[in-house]
Amino acid sequence: MDTKKFLLQENDIPEAWYNVAADMINKPRPILNPGTKEPVREEELYPLFAKELARQELNQTDAWIEIPEEVRDMYKIWRPTPLARAFGLEKALDTPAHIYFKNESVSPVGSHKLNSAIAQAYFCKKEGVTNITTETGAGQWGAAMSYAAAAFGLELAVYMVKVSYHQKPYRRSIMQTFGAQVIASPSMSTKAGRKILTDNPNYQGSLGTAISEAVELAMQTENCKYTLGSVLNHVMLHQTVIGLEAEKQMEMAGEYPETVIGCFGGGSNFSGIAFPFLRHKLTVGRNIRIVAAEPESCPKLTRGQFQYDFGDEAGYTPLIPMFTLGHTFSPAHIHAGGLRYHGAGSIVSQLRKDGLMEAVDIPQLETFDAATLFARSEGIIPAPESAHAIAAVIREAREAKLEGRPRVILFNLSGHGLIDMAAYDQYFAGDLMNYELSDEDVSRNLEGLEKII
Amino acid sequence: MDTKKFLLQENDIPEAWYNVAADMINKPRPILNPGTKEPVREEELYPLFAKELARQELNQTDAWIEIPEEVRDMYKIWRPTPLARAFGLEKALDTPAHIYFKNESVSPVGSHKLNSAIAQAYFCKKEGVTNITTETGAGQWGAAMSYAAAAFGLELAVYMVKVSYHQKPYRRSIMQTFGAQVIASPSMSTKAGRKILTDNPNYQGSLGTAISEAVELAMQTENCKYTLGSVLNHVMLHQTVIGLEAEKQMEMAGEYPETVIGCFGGGSNFSGIAFPFLRHKLTVGRNIRIVAAEPESCPKLTRGQFQYDFGDEAGYTPLIPMFTLGHTFSPAHIHAGGLRYHGAGSIVSQLRKDGLMEAVDIPQLETFDAATLFARSEGIIPAPESAHAIAAVIREAREAKLEGRPRVILFNLSGHGLIDMAAYDQYFAGDLMNYELSDEDVSRNLEGLEKII
Repeated sequence: MDTKKFLLQENDIPEAWYNVAADMINKPRPILNPGTKEPVREEELYPLFAKELARQELNQTDAWIEIPEEVRDMYKIWRPTPLARAFGLEKALDTPAHIYFKNESVSPVGSHKLNSAIAQAYFCKKEGVTNITTETGAGQWGAAMSYAAAAFGLELAVYMVKVSYHQKPYRRSIMQTFGAQVIASPSMSTKAGRKILTDNPNYQGSLGTAISEAVELAMQTENCKYTLGSVLNHVMLHQTVIGLEAEKQMEMAGEYPETVIGCFGGGSNFSGIAFPFLRHKLTVGRNIRIVAAEPESCPKLTRGQFQYDFGDEAGYTPLIPMFTLGHTFSPAHIHAGGLRYHGAGSIVSQLRKDGLMEAVDIPQLETFDAATLFARSEGIIPAPESAHAIAAVIREAREAKLEGRPRVILFNLSGHGLIDMAAYDQYFAGDLMNYELSDEDVSRNLEGLEKII
Repeated sequence: MDTKKFLLQENDIPEAWYNVAADMINKPRPILNPGTKEPVREEELYPLFAKELARQELNQTDAWIEIPEEVRDMYKIWRPTPLARAFGLEKALDTPAHIYFKNESVSPVGSHKLNSAIAQAYFCKKEGVTNITTETGAGQWGAAMSYAAAAFGLELAVYMVKVSYHQKPYRRSIMQTFGAQVIASPSMSTKAGRKILTDNPNYQGSLGTAISEAVELAMQTENCKYTLGSVLNHVMLHQTVIGLEAEKQMEMAGEYPETVIGCFGGGSNFSGIAFPFLRHKLTVGRNIRIVAAEPESCPKLTRGQFQYDFGDEAGYTPLIPMFTLGHTFSPAHIHAGGLRYHGAGSIVSQLRKDGLMEAVDIPQLETFDAATLFARSEGIIPAPESAHAIAAVIREAREAKLEGRPRVILFNLSGHGLIDMAAYDQYFAGDLMNYELSDEDVSRNLEGLEKII
């Protein structure tokens, strides 16, 4: 019988994270202080982030950054995660493609997000921080940060995007079970939230708004730092344990992926699976395609503009060089809440600009078609976010069938969907729809941006 | 750093199930035909079960029963599961105990139930069956059977206990995502259901009632068999992969458990973890304690009577020799829906009678206290059922602290609670309660039983 899963031992957990910026010829442009338009210095980030995280954020020289023993020790709770061959899906598609997936859904909170949550909580704790704030979309990141905060004895306040707060009450409950305080965003607890609610009392929130609120609360609370689950370079860095493990596991399988696919919101799970493989392209010229799968309704990589923009709605963050739809872009209420973000991080945006990766955008219904096929053929109900990667894989596998060639495809199953079943209910009831954007929809929020690039 | 998880490879998946009945000196008494009071012959079970499953059900001679290659191949989707040392919980309890848990929650449906679902679907398919029926309490078994049915191309109808159907809508959605038909029980679709609804229109159902409905539908449908997720000997048999893997993993850890604990509903996960270790007691006289943890509100092993009784509410099944509260016992609406069953299977009942195992009963609030402590210290939110095992472990670990002795405790984490968050919400809101039973409550439903034992 064929081997289905390629399993590592605890001592195979990587000892260092991979910092792709060190190997990029065109470095990501610097993030800018919005007042001076000068590159942000490390010290300027200290009020917001733990110092070590600020250091990691700006590091473009060290390709490898050691993972502290305490973090690796916590990773052992669920890592290494399995790499699996999707024989069931291959059979269902009748494709010659060899489809592999890294299964990050086996984490206790059900997604890859814990990889960075543990690291961020550790560095905060180490520097004597007592309180942290964060935002969450669908709740995957918030759930992860809640457990990480509990594990390191930190108090946590989570701003959860209002539409998800109501769509996904179980994720709220998970955060509360771990002891976090959860606030629906926009809220009246911050200036940013109050302004938005005054202008538009029924606004259902966005990641950009929730970030504004979390940043504001962190700045106003003593001994408090802000944490973010995506977009930033240090988050991508922590997530590279995914791809580094997968690299060893693909060797065990005796194959090398010609295409690596991840769903794309701000870039955390995508970068985690892709950067370690991209390294082979950057350093030894290996031929490999890297594909980001984003929602049709939030297509920053396929239809956005490469531009300096804020990371949040209110404009509290530094200016980030990103493929963006504009920081005031309000994404449709798709169930893949974790992908409802207006911009891509600076590294991914540079890679995209330089043609070192590709992107596809996928309609919501196609993602649920893909998710259902995957569930029935592989037994795992994927998160609506991860379903975007699966849909992109299915497109590739169908092409492989037309070609009659066994393409080797690797994707990241970033999370399971057991806490997103209301979305599946709506899909089966025929109540879900696609959200196609006109060119005007796409460009509307880009007009106000300063054209620095 | 200490090793947290003991991980096996796919070729460590057991090649045979362990049939404890073969090693028991006092064999379980036979199940009886309720009409003749004669032991049921294998052929009499054929209308209800696949022939191979009927054979396994009555087998008291072969200690090892080979696992078909096709079943082992499906097991590879998630097996072997990790054995973990609960360092976080030990620290939280400040106990010298060494606490290990077998993590069955990593299965794609979130519980151990898939171990038997896959086997039952396989044997049905192999014998040309096209349709199957089953019942489910909290939905763990139904979810597992739904995926197993999808994997083997069988049509499945699931009767789900009405209180759980409403308490746990996500589990219903999971079953539907895998393509199963789900009916709240009692329903108007069967004679058994109609009778109960006529007598008591507001009856919220029980496993016993749902079994009656599923059995009735199977008997009246062409080429259809009934499947059950617990109680029966062949189900216990399939679940022994849990303990057989754990046996190897405890060897890797260099320890041997002096106490093995599982939560107890009908006995499936308990038997799975316990029987392979009990084997050492039965065959080489090894000193080991086996403890079943059941709900205070459904205490068949601690307060029930050893008696022949029906497995279902309506009296469709053979008479089973069981510790029982009476087949008409209506358990309180605790959230551990999978433990709301009136009786224990014939093997466990015999073991209990012979003093080869122990049982404790635990109030609902203590189980949620235990679950929350476990979640915050280990990162995994347990299913309300599994929380009974954790509560029993915590009692043992506290005793170990009083003794100042490092007891080695192994328990089965039968499932995660990510789909049971409504229960946690109620717990944190103070809306959950205990259900203590008076002696009269316990004996009331026992009166009508024929005293064959």
